[in-house]
Amino acid sequence: MSGLAALWRRAICQRCWKLRHPPLRPLSSLMGETDRFNGITVDVKQVPESLPDKDFLDLLHNSLQIWKTEKITAAWLKVPIQYGRFIPIAARLGFQFHHAEGNSCHLKLWMKESSEDKTPRFATHQVGVAGFVFREDTQSVLVVKDRDRKFSFWKFAGGLSELGEDIGDTAVREVFEETGVKTEFQSVLSVRQQHTQPGAFGRSDFFFICRLTPLSYDIKPCSEEISACQWMNIHELHEGCKSVAPITRRILDLAMYGLKEGFHNVDLYAVDMQSVYKGLRYKLYHRPYPS
Amino acid sequence: MSGLAALWRRAICQRCWKLRHPPLRPLSSLMGETDRFNGITVDVKQVPESLPDKDFLDLLHNSLQIWKTEKITAAWLKVPIQYGRFIPIAARLGFQFHHAEGNSCHLKLWMKESSEDKTPRFATHQVGVAGFVFREDTQSVLVVKDRDRKFSFWKFAGGLSELGEDIGDTAVREVFEETGVKTEFQSVLSVRQQHTQPGAFGRSDFFFICRLTPLSYDIKPCSEEISACQWMNIHELHEGCKSVAPITRRILDLAMYGLKEGFHNVDLYAVDMQSVYKGLRYKLYHRPYPS
Repeated sequence: MSGLAALWRRAICQRCWKLRHPPLRPLSSLMGETDRFNGITVDVKQVPESLPDKDFLDLLHNSLQIWKTEKITAAWLKVPIQYGRFIPIAARLGFQFHHAEGNSCHLKLWMKESSEDKTPRFATHQVGVAGFVFREDTQSVLVVKDRDRKFSFWKFAGGLSELGEDIGDTAVREVFEETGVKTEFQSVLSVRQQHTQPGAFGRSDFFFICRLTPLSYDIKPCSEEISACQWMNIHELHEGCKSVAPITRRILDLAMYGLKEGFHNVDLYAVDMQSVYKGLRYKLYHRPYPS
Repeated sequence: MSGLAALWRRAICQRCWKLRHPPLRPLSSLMGETDRFNGITVDVKQVPESLPDKDFLDLLHNSLQIWKTEKITAAWLKVPIQYGRFIPIAARLGFQFHHAEGNSCHLKLWMKESSEDKTPRFATHQVGVAGFVFREDTQSVLVVKDRDRKFSFWKFAGGLSELGEDIGDTAVREVFEETGVKTEFQSVLSVRQQHTQPGAFGRSDFFFICRLTPLSYDIKPCSEEISACQWMNIHELHEGCKSVAPITRRILDLAMYGLKEGFHNVDLYAVDMQSVYKGLRYKLYHRPYPS
């Protein structure tokens, strides 16, 4: 039963189908789910899309009064995009955007006046991944040049992680999409954290460099994204070629050390583990140790 | 000059201050800034807050017609929260939420029908950091128990990174806030990636464990967040105590190896580097190599 139907049901006598006397305020409060922090989340879809602005304002105002007596810490409104008309109304009562994507947004109001807002901020980082792909037989590295980029450096193929994708899988997917070369994930070599990253909508950026081994060698570059792609001898790239960014040079230094003394000196390995949250697994990356 | 003023200026003869004949459609299109991908970003604030719905629909519709002829790839609308009334109108023309926070949201419409949406998704990860703080004199580790948690494990103190904060700084700040112990960042020991993390609003989670050295020893636990806090002998914690999560056990294994053979075997060190983007710096974490 929807929230509204439930409210009306309460207001109507179930025997004679007449309004109870005195009638309850049928729209006195929005229905929501409380969480373990005593926050409440309300799906605005429970009210008719055509509800007049004034009625929504009254309804939300009444709900807030009730939630205050219930010591609700934070009120969350999930607003479908077609209900956007209600957003400025909620803003008049202090709600702000917490996050939004696709066809809905979440508004939030911190209600515990005596303490600072404890609700976590929405995701702060985008994640990019690149693949260091080394070919033993020719001692060469797979490098690309981006099309449409401000900087024309030779770099490792890579791109942004999709939501829910492990970094190793991003590396393998992006290398294949950009170069046509199939690879297998071995380890994480490095991670960079950069804030106010251009193109990240004001968020920060993690950029992982993974070590991959090639499973194929033929290059079929993606002409939309890549202007050049080749296997380049690692010694030439490391010593001779200047058109690499400082981060690439540093990873090349690290890789040269790995090549000489063994990659186990520079690798972080992935372990697949069971989360404490039932049914969830995660990947943990760290140095090897003797068991 | 505001977008509207500019439009009127174009419509009015600058010599005689009369409307040009035939008059141009004065509100024919929204003004915006184009980017290097030929996307356009429009701040909706340029129209009056009181603009009737029908007029905004016409204005946006006309703008889209013009942008199509200009081969605009993606249209972005920055909508202040008090302009939220326009959101469902934009949705009728195909716009969706891209992201939102605080007092504004960004709507997006991918306009290149011949190709898939190339715009990057908004940030996909929240970032948590914990500190492995080891006290040499007593061979003990700083551990806490969270208040209000489903799982009552001994764990390393830590919490979520603030926007723009380096992971090492988060570790030091969170350890201090939760335990009162001052520390100094040494290295990154491990990183975990977990998807559909509870409490992350559908986003994924990176959890870094940093190695910190203590600069003070007195414990002043934060009673709001922490139910227990102590220096616990690492051998007891590693061998005897069962109330730790699998990830903590694994980090303890790693740390025991570091203790025995030297932490340089398990550490990732931070290098502060100059970005290719002028004025930006970043932190790069990787294994040491001989220079």
